[in-house]
Parts: sequence; structure tokens; C-alpha cells
Amino acid sequence: MADLYETALGASTPDTITLLGQDLARDVMGNVGFGELAFWLATQRLPTTGETRLFEAVLAALADHGFTPTAIVTRLTYLSAPDSVQGALAAGLLGGGSRFLGVTEDCGRFLHDVVSTVEPPFDWDAIALETLRRQGKARIPGLGHHVHKNGDPRTPRLFQIAEEEGLVGPHLSLFAAIGRVHPQVLGKTLPLNGAGTCGAALADLGLPLELLRGFALLARTAGLIGQLAEELRNPVANQIFLSVDSNTRSVAPLEE
Amino acid sequence: MADLYETALGASTPDTITLLGQDLARDVMGNVGFGELAFWLATQRLPTTGETRLFEAVLAALADHGFTPTAIVTRLTYLSAPDSVQGALAAGLLGGGSRFLGVTEDCGRFLHDVVSTVEPPFDWDAIALETLRRQGKARIPGLGHHVHKNGDPRTPRLFQIAEEEGLVGPHLSLFAAIGRVHPQVLGKTLPLNGAGTCGAALADLGLPLELLRGFALLARTAGLIGQLAEELRNPVANQIFLSVDSNTRSVAPLEE
Amino acid sequence: MADLYETALGASTPDTITLLGQDLARDVMGNVGFGELAFWLATQRLPTTGETRLFEAVLAALADHGFTPTAIVTRLTYLSAPDSVQGALAAGLLGGGSRFLGVTEDCGRFLHDVVSTVEPPFDWDAIALETLRRQGKARIPGLGHHVHKNGDPRTPRLFQIAEEEGLVGPHLSLFAAIGRVHPQVLGKTLPLNGAGTCGAALADLGLPLELLRGFALLARTAGLIGQLAEELRNPVANQIFLSVDSNTRSVAPLEE
Amino acid sequence: MADLYETALGASTPDTITLLGQDLARDVMGNVGFGELAFWLATQRLPTTGETRLFEAVLAALADHGFTPTAIVTRLTYLSAPDSVQGALAAGLLGGGSRFLGVTEDCGRFLHDVVSTVEPPFDWDAIALETLRRQGKARIPGLGHHVHKNGDPRTPRLFQIAEEEGLVGPHLSLFAAIGRVHPQVLGKTLPLNGAGTCGAALADLGLPLELLRGFALLARTAGLIGQLAEELRNPVANQIFLSVDSNTRSVAPLEE
Repeated sequence: MADLYETALGASTPDTITLLGQDLARDVMGNVGFGELAFWLATQRLPTTGETRLFEAVLAALADHGFTPTAIVTRLTYLSAPDSVQGALAAGLLGGGSRFLGVTEDCGRFLHDVVSTVEPPFDWDAIALETLRRQGKARIPGLGHHVHKNGDPRTPRLFQIAEEEGLVGPHLSLFAAIGRVHPQVLGKTLPLNGAGTCGAALADLGLPLELLRGFALLARTAGLIGQLAEELRNPVANQIFLSVDSNTRSVAPLEE
Repeated sequence: MADLYETALGASTPDTITLLGQDLARDVMGNVGFGELAFWLATQRLPTTGETRLFEAVLAALADHGFTPTAIVTRLTYLSAPDSVQGALAAGLLGGGSRFLGVTEDCGRFLHDVVSTVEPPFDWDAIALETLRRQGKARIPGLGHHVHKNGDPRTPRLFQIAEEEGLVGPHLSLFAAIGRVHPQVLGKTLPLNGAGTCGAALADLGLPLELLRGFALLARTAGLIGQLAEELRNPVANQIFLSVDSNTRSVAPLEE
Repeated sequence: MADLYETALGASTPDTITLLGQDLARDVMGNVGFGELAFWLATQRLPTTGETRLFEAVLAALADHGFTPTAIVTRLTYLSAPDSVQGALAAGLLGGGSRFLGVTEDCGRFLHDVVSTVEPPFDWDAIALETLRRQGKARIPGLGHHVHKNGDPRTPRLFQIAEEEGLVGPHLSLFAAIGRVHPQVLGKTLPLNGAGTCGAALADLGLPLELLRGFALLARTAGLIGQLAEELRNPVANQIFLSVDSNTRSVAPLEE
Repeated sequence: MADLYETALGASTPDTITLLGQDLARDVMGNVGFGELAFWLATQRLPTTGETRLFEAVLAALADHGFTPTAIVTRLTYLSAPDSVQGALAAGLLGGGSRFLGVTEDCGRFLHDVVSTVEPPFDWDAIALETLRRQGKARIPGLGHHVHKNGDPRTPRLFQIAEEEGLVGPHLSLFAAIGRVHPQVLGKTLPLNGAGTCGAALADLGLPLELLRGFALLARTAGLIGQLAEELRNPVANQIFLSVDSNTRSVAPLEE
């Protein structure tokens, strides 16, 4: 007896192509935006207009931050292997791990671990206080930013859009409360960073927690294509390589 | 004197974040869709509504085709290394090369090589005939489909959207002409496939030819996140692995 | 003032190339084996003959296990993108994460966490008993194998080579003790698996714990090249893809 | 009827593990060096001692060249995603494409295209002259080096080892002849570079031409592990990132 691999995603017959149970050509192409489609593919439900707006705001917030390590990596890989655009993009995405892109996922999971254990009516400030006290000296994901020390401009904007669309759920609520009460516990005031707020928003949108990092990577794919397009017009990768090369000093190995 | 690396993409100061010369939080987030933003990042110009619609139709056409090799690769990699979503997505994208995702780029480039050498007024059928004759027995990128032998449903839909938006340019025009005249040269009728039509449409949208494969990869990133989300809900990767494993026969090496 | 990036690895002048402080052409090429060189690069000290033998035995133990997910991934990626050998190898390596290749690293780290807290004279059986009791119901890395239930043939061979070369250090000693005493704690007898023993041996060789997974990946790179060479002579990737494709069933999405 | 996937590589039963038709634990581990094993996996025949020596000399020649783009990429990716050693190594390998690591493969293929069309007795100088004349203004793979303008030290060493081992075959012979006669055709003297000589040597060793780049990548994997080990001891990746970041100038996009 053969195994059967089930999927509700793309499927083809000689005369038809379906995607998510829709006729791809007639119902999806020309009618569904790309952010909407990405949400739909991940959840298998069509988002509302408001959900799409908040989701696309998150993607915009994460798409590009200039010459980050991932952008440099994509440009250097394209310099070395211009025959493989897929390799340059993949190499850049591989930097999307715990340190530079991971805050979004870490924050979403951290909030969810709390949210999934509390019951209404919610006193978010009290819950936040207890959470912060339990956390002790451990880092709070999403709290603090090494550049935007007085506030990350993306954070209030994401809260504003979520409010306009009626999408402030428990994760954003708890995160806002952490923003209000943490000075009482930590003795200093830190900004809620944008990457963390993105994680809270994605969790409130019901996207799978295991894949929150994936949405940051989707956003970053668009950004990395932008980096490659700019590299084609105004190359800098070789200059970056040469600046490293010319500042290299050969030293003796540990043991000779 | 220090090197200066210029970029018009993301930039930050302690109080502001800009992207493409815009205030990211105020002007981009909440106002710009994700497909629109991806186009903007690649070209550094804001697309029109019609351009965005055609671009997003192309992305929808390429996002997912079920259990393709790239989808299987992403699922198997996630099975092996569930700690690294970025690795699973990158592995899937690495299959986006010459055979399975390359038609889009090959077709766009093939058409552009012709388009860039002809001058108005254009007699596309005559140009197509000459192109096909010069090509001899070499493969025409975008012509033929191993499943949709009577026509790829995405192709007429893309032409329809391009017409509705006034975006049928020289690449789509030449491709359509190839569709009309190739039986005279080849002695048989083949469909214009969807992936090739996507390449023609992306070239008419003015996107960089070197990166046409990149847009297929962007679309596929959304598809692969959908594959991972489905794998989380209804896993099949281990079953695929076991079906290979249980059908393996150990044979003697070439020389023992 | 310029930054200076120091390295003891490769360096060039117009007339010389050095590696690890040696003249590459005269001193390394033709004189140093590849396993020896890999060890030297990682530690910046030349291994003894015995260390090289044990290290290469570990690499042999991990190089290839037939149609594992990583091997299937490399073959499928090469099918999709035959223009990029680097992409096919990279995709396969990306499966080298926590589940399929991670035991080597996990076991090495687990043993090291214990070894670094005890002082001579060592009563390894007592230390192992205490370690296993403290671990409670948590998994012991390196203990058990889903196929080799009566013993992994690589395990006694690695211990034998380490003994022959006088290289049984605290990690292998503790692992052997775990093999002896765990039935008292777990109430059942499990084999010490080969991947875990490799981790213990690599740790005893003084290789950096953060990179134990890297050596498994080096071994696997050789294995994946073997997989690609076999795929070139006797292709199976397309058959694997078709067997998945032909066993696919399209189902309704979660919400329609 | 089930498909059968054949392999002569790794295979397991509950009590045995075989590799290349050998008992892995008894016959391979402890007896076969890692370079020897990599050759064996790729060709399914055990190399002679001389073949192993030449092969390992090639791997040593290609393992590391200091802060190349691939090394920088691996270090930056590890900085961003220290949780995924496999991602850092894979990202570095993805730069192993046409420009930085491709010479080895290009040269091997170029020579083979000629070698496969000539018959004994061979007048290599005459064949080389004809080859160079036919090539016209096209680049000769393996000829010239941007740093080692007076000669790449690896080249004479590889020829010496091949001669000592009786392994100078048609590819190395033709390449040497190109080195002798090219000034007559090109009107200037260029060195035979080491990467190209490696390609000629690998081709003479009978390794598959489609995978010559793969052996460069295997060598580089060892080098990249060395880079990561050095990065752990003496980190520079963040400094490289900051030197780019601090030399960045934000400019207006193409169209505002």
C-alpha cells in the first residue's frame, strides 16, 4: 500500500492549477496581494484587510536595515559566485539566526509562554510585573535597542496600526505592559524594540510560533534582493573585501 | 581616507529609520504593501498600482507547486535540523537553479537579447519567426510544459492582467508572437508556459534581468513557509525519508 | 587608525604563501595528510600520528550513512540546480542540525559539562552514576540507537583505536562508565552509539566544543560528494521526486 | 512494484555497517585516511598511496587563503547566527562559485575538452599552441594570478609531486605545455596558477569533472572550520561589520 502525502497547497492536473483550494489563475492571480498570499499560505485561511495591513507593516519593518551582516554576506557571496543568485540569497538568510533576526521569534515565544497560562480578566500590568520578577536577571526579549535608546520608531507605529485595525491581542497587550512596568523591576527605562513588537504582532495574528523567524526571513528576502540590485548598480562588495584584506596582519599560530 | 559604502536602502540614526529615502515608520509601514515594497527595493522607484498588480500576480504564479524538489528539500531539512528554520528555507531556495526555477530568468533574458536589438515599428511576428529560425534546434525558453500540454492556465491570465493594466511591453509582445508563429518553424504546437510568461512580464516591468530568478525565489520563500507550516500540522517528511530508506538496495561499488 | 584583522591561517605575498606559519608549497603540500591538516587548522597545532588516526577514524565513522535526509536533499537539490554544486552540498549540510548530526556535539558537550567539574582521582563509575541520577528523565546524549539496538559496531572500534593510541581521556572514560552503569539507573540496557562516541573522542582530542558539529559536517561533505558522484553515474533523485509526486493527495485547506 | 534506490555507499543492518562494500568499523575506521576516503567515496575505487598524496596536496593547496570573501562570509554568518555552525559553513561554501573557487573546475574542464579529442603520440606543445590560437581573445582558465605575478609557488610543487608519483597525465602535460608556449601566442608571459594546476591534477587523477569544484569545496570546508575556530579565539567579525557600518553613507534612491 502506497503512502499518501497530503497537501492543501499547490496542485496541478493537465488543465488546472489550484492553490489553497482556489483556482490559481482565476481566483488568486490578479486578486490577491503578495503579503495576503504569504499569510494565507502559512495559516491556510484568508486574512482580513486589517490583518493583511498589520502583517505587511511587520514585513516592512523587518525588510532591510542597510549594511547588516546578512546584507554584507549576500553581497560578498554574489561577488564570489555571480552565477548563483540563489546562493547569494540563501547565504544572507543563513545569518537570520538567534542574534540578528531572532528577537522577533524569541519575543513572540516569550510572550506566548506567559499568555498561554493566564485567564481573563487580564490585568496586564500585574501579569507583566510578575513575569519580569520571575525572569530575574535573565534578558527580556524585545526590551532595549543598541541604537534607538530613546525609542524605536517602529514600535509606536505598529501599536497604532494594530489599534486602528482592532488587532491588539494578548501578546501586544502584555508587551505594552512590560514597556510600562519594567522600570519598577529593572530600575531603568528601556525601549520596546521594533523587532520584538513585530514578534508580538505576528503572535496576535495567530501565525505559527515555530515560524515567526520565517516571516522575518521572508521580509529579509525582499531586502536582500534590493541589496543585490543596488550592488549591480553601485558595487561595494569588492571594496569591502579589499578593506579587510588590506588590514590583515599575519600572526604566528598558537603553537609553532 | 576611509572608503564610503553608499546605500539608498535602510539607514538608522538614534531617532529615525529611513528606507528608500522615506521615513520607515510613518511613510512605509501601514501604507505600502509587501509586493509593492519588494518592487520598490529592487528598482528604487515606487511602482504604480497596475505594476504592483502584475508583479504580485507573477509572485502568486510562482509561489508554490506542491511537492516539488524544493518543497521536499525544505521539509527534509527541517526534519533533520528543526532548530534552524533559516537553514530549511535556505536549503529549499538552493534548488532554485537552472532546471526548476530557471525558466523565468532564462526566458526573460532570451527575449531581452532580441528586444534590445530591434527598433520600432515592431512587427513582432516577423521578429519572432526570425528569432526561432536563428535558434535552430536549440531550446526556446518558456515554450512547452511537461504537464500542461494543452496550455498553462497561468499564461492567458498574465497576458490578461498585463493588458488590463496597460503593461504589455516588448517582452510580452515578442513572447506572444513566439506563441503564434512557432508551429510554422517547429512543425508542432507547444504551450507558452507560465514560468516563461512570468519572465517576460518581469522584464516588461523593468526589473533587473540579472535578478529575475530572485523574484521567483522571493515567491518561493512564501511558498516554503507554507510548506513548513503544513509540515508542522501534518508531517510527511519522515514518511518520505522512510519510503526512500525502505526501498534502498545496497550494491557492490564500481571496483571492489 | 585602521583596524587590524589578525590571522594565523593562510597568507600571501607576491612570492610566498604561508599556512599556519608554514611555507604552504614546501612544507604542507605533499607532506601533510588532509585529516591532519583539518585538525591543524582547527587547533593551530600539528596532531601526533595517533591523534590523526583517531581523528580520521571519527571522520570515517560519520562520512556517509546511505540515503539519509541530508543525502536525499543534496541529490534533489542537484536535480533542481545542476549548475551549482556548491548549492547542492550546502543544502545537504544544512540538515546537519540538532536531530541527525547533532548527537556528536551534544554528547561531547554533555560529557564536558561533567568533566570540567570533577577532580582527580576519578572514579568514573561513581561520577557516571551521579550524572545519570541528576539527569532524571532527561535524555542522555549518545545513549541508544534506533537501528543498532544490540550495539553500534563503531563504538568498540573507536574505543579500541583510542586505547591503541593512548588517547582515552576523561570524556571517553566517562562515556564508557555511562555505558557500564546506566542499567542500574534506567532499568534497561542501551548501546552507546557511534555518533556519541565520536563526540567523546573529539572532545578528548581537545577540539573546540563549539565546533564538534563542524567536524561531523566536514566528514559529511566528503560523503555528500560521494552521493553526487553516484547520482551522476546512477541517478535516483528524479525517481524519488516522482515517487513523492505520484503519492500526493490534494486536500482542502484548513478553512475554505 | 516498488522503486529501488541503489547505493554502494553507506548501508546498515542492526548488526553491521558497511561503506563502499567494506565493514566500516573493522576495515575503514583506523585504517583509511580521510583524504583517501574522500577519493574512494567519489570514485568508488581505493586510490594508490601516490594518488592519495597528490590528492591531499591539492586539498592542502585549496584549503585556506586567509580573509577571502568566503572566510569573511562564514565569520559574519556565525556572528549573526551562532546557534547554527552548519549555516555558517554552508554560507561560506556558497561563495565557491565561478569567480573565487571556479578556476579549478574551469581549468580541468577546459583541458579535458582538448584532451578528449587528441590521439597519441601527443605533441603537447603543438596541441597547446593550436588550443591557444583557437581560443583567440577568450580567457585561458588557470593562466595568470593577480598576486603571484612571477609564479604561484603551488604550481611547481604540484608538478613535482605528480612526477614523483608517476601521475603526470594528459591534463597536467597539456597545462605545462600551455605554460611553455603561451608567450608565443599572447605576447606576454603569465604564470600557471595553483588553482588551475589543481584542476589539471584532479582531472589526471580521474575524478569526475562535474565535481571538481566539489573537491575545492571539501578543502575549503576544513579551512572554514579553521576560520571559525580562530574566530572563537580571536573574534574579528563584529569589527569587520562595524568598519562597514561606520563607513556607510546614506544616499537618495534612484528616483524619489
